[in-house]
Amino acid sequence: MTKLDMIVIGSGPGGQRAAVQAAKIGKNVMLVEKAKDVGGVSINTGTLPSKTLREAVVDLSGARERQLYGMMYRDNTVTPDSLLSRTRRVMAAERDVIRAQLHRNRVRLVHGMARFESANTVAVGSDVYEADYIVIAVGTFPAVTPGIAIDHETVLTSDDILQLKRIPKNLIVAGAGVIGTEYATMFMELGCEITLVDKRSVYLDMIDDEIRDAFQAHLRERNVTFRMNEEVTRVEKIGPERVIVHVKSGKRIAGDMLLVSSGRQGAVDGLQLEKAGITADPRGKITVDANYRTTVSNIYAVGDVIGAPQLASTSAEQGRIAACHAFGIKAQSVPDLFPYGIYSIPEIAWVGPTEEDLTRRGIGYETGRARYREIARGQILGDDDGMLKIVFELHTRKLLAVWAMGTQATEVVHVGQAVMAHGGTLDYFLSNVFNYPTLAECYKVAALNGYNKLRGLVDLAQGQTSTDGAE
Amino acid sequence: MTKLDMIVIGSGPGGQRAAVQAAKIGKNVMLVEKAKDVGGVSINTGTLPSKTLREAVVDLSGARERQLYGMMYRDNTVTPDSLLSRTRRVMAAERDVIRAQLHRNRVRLVHGMARFESANTVAVGSDVYEADYIVIAVGTFPAVTPGIAIDHETVLTSDDILQLKRIPKNLIVAGAGVIGTEYATMFMELGCEITLVDKRSVYLDMIDDEIRDAFQAHLRERNVTFRMNEEVTRVEKIGPERVIVHVKSGKRIAGDMLLVSSGRQGAVDGLQLEKAGITADPRGKITVDANYRTTVSNIYAVGDVIGAPQLASTSAEQGRIAACHAFGIKAQSVPDLFPYGIYSIPEIAWVGPTEEDLTRRGIGYETGRARYREIARGQILGDDDGMLKIVFELHTRKLLAVWAMGTQATEVVHVGQAVMAHGGTLDYFLSNVFNYPTLAECYKVAALNGYNKLRGLVDLAQGQTSTDGAE
Repeated sequence: MTKLDMIVIGSGPGGQRAAVQAAKIGKNVMLVEKAKDVGGVSINTGTLPSKTLREAVVDLSGARERQLYGMMYRDNTVTPDSLLSRTRRVMAAERDVIRAQLHRNRVRLVHGMARFESANTVAVGSDVYEADYIVIAVGTFPAVTPGIAIDHETVLTSDDILQLKRIPKNLIVAGAGVIGTEYATMFMELGCEITLVDKRSVYLDMIDDEIRDAFQAHLRERNVTFRMNEEVTRVEKIGPERVIVHVKSGKRIAGDMLLVSSGRQGAVDGLQLEKAGITADPRGKITVDANYRTTVSNIYAVGDVIGAPQLASTSAEQGRIAACHAFGIKAQSVPDLFPYGIYSIPEIAWVGPTEEDLTRRGIGYETGRARYREIARGQILGDDDGMLKIVFELHTRKLLAVWAMGTQATEVVHVGQAVMAHGGTLDYFLSNVFNYPTLAECYKVAALNGYNKLRGLVDLAQGQTSTDGAE
Repeated sequence: MTKLDMIVIGSGPGGQRAAVQAAKIGKNVMLVEKAKDVGGVSINTGTLPSKTLREAVVDLSGARERQLYGMMYRDNTVTPDSLLSRTRRVMAAERDVIRAQLHRNRVRLVHGMARFESANTVAVGSDVYEADYIVIAVGTFPAVTPGIAIDHETVLTSDDILQLKRIPKNLIVAGAGVIGTEYATMFMELGCEITLVDKRSVYLDMIDDEIRDAFQAHLRERNVTFRMNEEVTRVEKIGPERVIVHVKSGKRIAGDMLLVSSGRQGAVDGLQLEKAGITADPRGKITVDANYRTTVSNIYAVGDVIGAPQLASTSAEQGRIAACHAFGIKAQSVPDLFPYGIYSIPEIAWVGPTEEDLTRRGIGYETGRARYREIARGQILGDDDGMLKIVFELHTRKLLAVWAMGTQATEVVHVGQAVMAHGGTLDYFLSNVFNYPTLAECYKVAALNGYNKLRGLVDLAQGQTSTDGAE
């Protein structure tokens, strides 16, 4: 029996980072991956392919160009193959990066299905390995919905998108979470009519109200229909390329494709968790503490298998924290500063709490807002709906949150994140010089907007004089 | 005679900001603009149109798409009109923004040619105005080169680009500064063969050596020829669409268009500067002190007319400082943190000094570098040549500079700028979580690269353990 310091199960962002981190502090680490390729859902079916596909849609749909240049811009024929060819290339490149990184750090990579034999023993095929610490980073797969038979062509999950053979005209998306929204807006850009069905009453309930309203308005203008508080009860297939979706309230929705995106389920089957003394909930989710430790003290779980936020960036951070904790290395993590990104079209991104959250917590704040169309770069991009909102503490002017919707929103939030991390205030943006023309200028316009609101509150503005003329 | 607190001559970014700033602190301000449209060179012939044109070139040339999707991507026919239509729309929108801003701040706008009658008196047509302070923000026009006759079609300056009737096949650019480079790379993307001729020995001598080398290599791969240490002596026109350029060393360069971009000349003609007691140098440049005050104590000069860096962002900042200084308002400005952007294809941007500069000043530093192709977002964008370099102080790890070349470089530098402004260090990037996939992740990869170099220096790395596994 081979003895190791740590065994990591799953080579997605959480597993990779845990393994590499342990290796970097000199530990003998083995990484077990059941698929033939490394990278997990992030590289192979989820994050990376969907983001690459998104970029291809933006490039090839011609939607942006037609808006900017009018109909003289001739459309390229968009086929599933033109959209997906780039995706395959990027995936291959990223798998190489991961393999090289594991190799460079001397992480032993074993392909096969891992199963627990005890809390310290893992078997892969006929080989048995022992380790002081084990990290479960097995990820998830699309949850199955009773009553919906997936045929992978007309009724499909996000895992089937990479094998798509046609582009639908009327797409129904069952489940309007982040993944459902990202794919819905891609097909929206390709000119499809979209219906989003979700049993929750509030769409994307983790985001700021103002951003959600703006985003929903943007989507509605592009022929997206929202059916919230609705649950799919039955799916009727009419011929090979036609479905009718029956929902609880009695409505029927017709389309030529149904994307089922009703959450993800922990990929714990076959792990024999019971032999390690761990139980997962009915959705395959494993419960962990603040250091990502399961109920069994030498076993950690990181990434999508532990539930929200299920982002590559946070999963990697969880992997790092878990490995450091296991080997007694102090590792700091500041979840308040984690950025979140929804790669819809347009993008949504944020750092920090919502306004609603701050109100609940009794924190006095003010906001400043800039619309992309108010700044030159927004005009150049033709992004009329984009916006950036900063939220700052009323008395100290400390930056508390940044919310953005629009082109490059997932990038733009990092400026505010850096300011927040260093305890910076509104005044940084008021006096800073930004490259012209850039989207970063939104911070200045938003800060001036916020400053002008403060000036209405005499006691706060006392002795302050605006030394900036951009507003 | 009308009496004012301040007269500002010129409505470009420097003039606008000076006028609005003075108005904001309650002053009675008049802005004189000789052209029929507000905005100066920035809006009407320079910055904004060139940046919009750049975006149109990137969108419409199909160069990026062909690289990513192969030849199945069919080319749209790019005509000067398709390229320029968007530019005209953006210019009109931005002029409206400026007019609204002046109106909102009650700045009186007068159209006409201003001329000094004394250090406190300015005449416009038959009207004479008196003011305590006067700000000269007249900008520049393309410098004339003896021996080169501009015909605006085959031999032209950057001012003629917006009236372009054809796209050249072989373009010669005389003067390889920022403007010459920006236009050269746009035509390069459209498939033109480019020859850059410049009398200086070092190309873009303000930028970091490593970035310059990478940039020049990128351009050379795309059929750009550099002729440094060369001076144009004669231009021979052969028919309506053919020129032969003779240079000092004896070479002759043939092309079907010549863009003359040999610097800019201060637009001081007709101002009657002598009546105010001010002299401009032979290139029309006005000398100022640290507060942008000319040799006459109540007269300021800001923007391109005072020379480098001649950027919209810095000109606006100069206008703000000048107005604040005139009326005794304390205004802070931190030129060390000014970002610089060259909107070439690819973009170049930076904050802080070059490595060469730090070495000269005896400041011990280390660098960390990330290539766009090392991160997922770079792969998705297909930007193989892009790179980000961070420079940090060896002992304190304080961030000293950020240099970037590639897609969105002018945006990306603002993350580093925010860290620098708050005295942040390498460690911020090491421990920070960035959205995945974004270009901002370059900061983390660059920081890890820098950190690994530090580890080689045992005394510095003592007691430090890398708690990050991304490298």
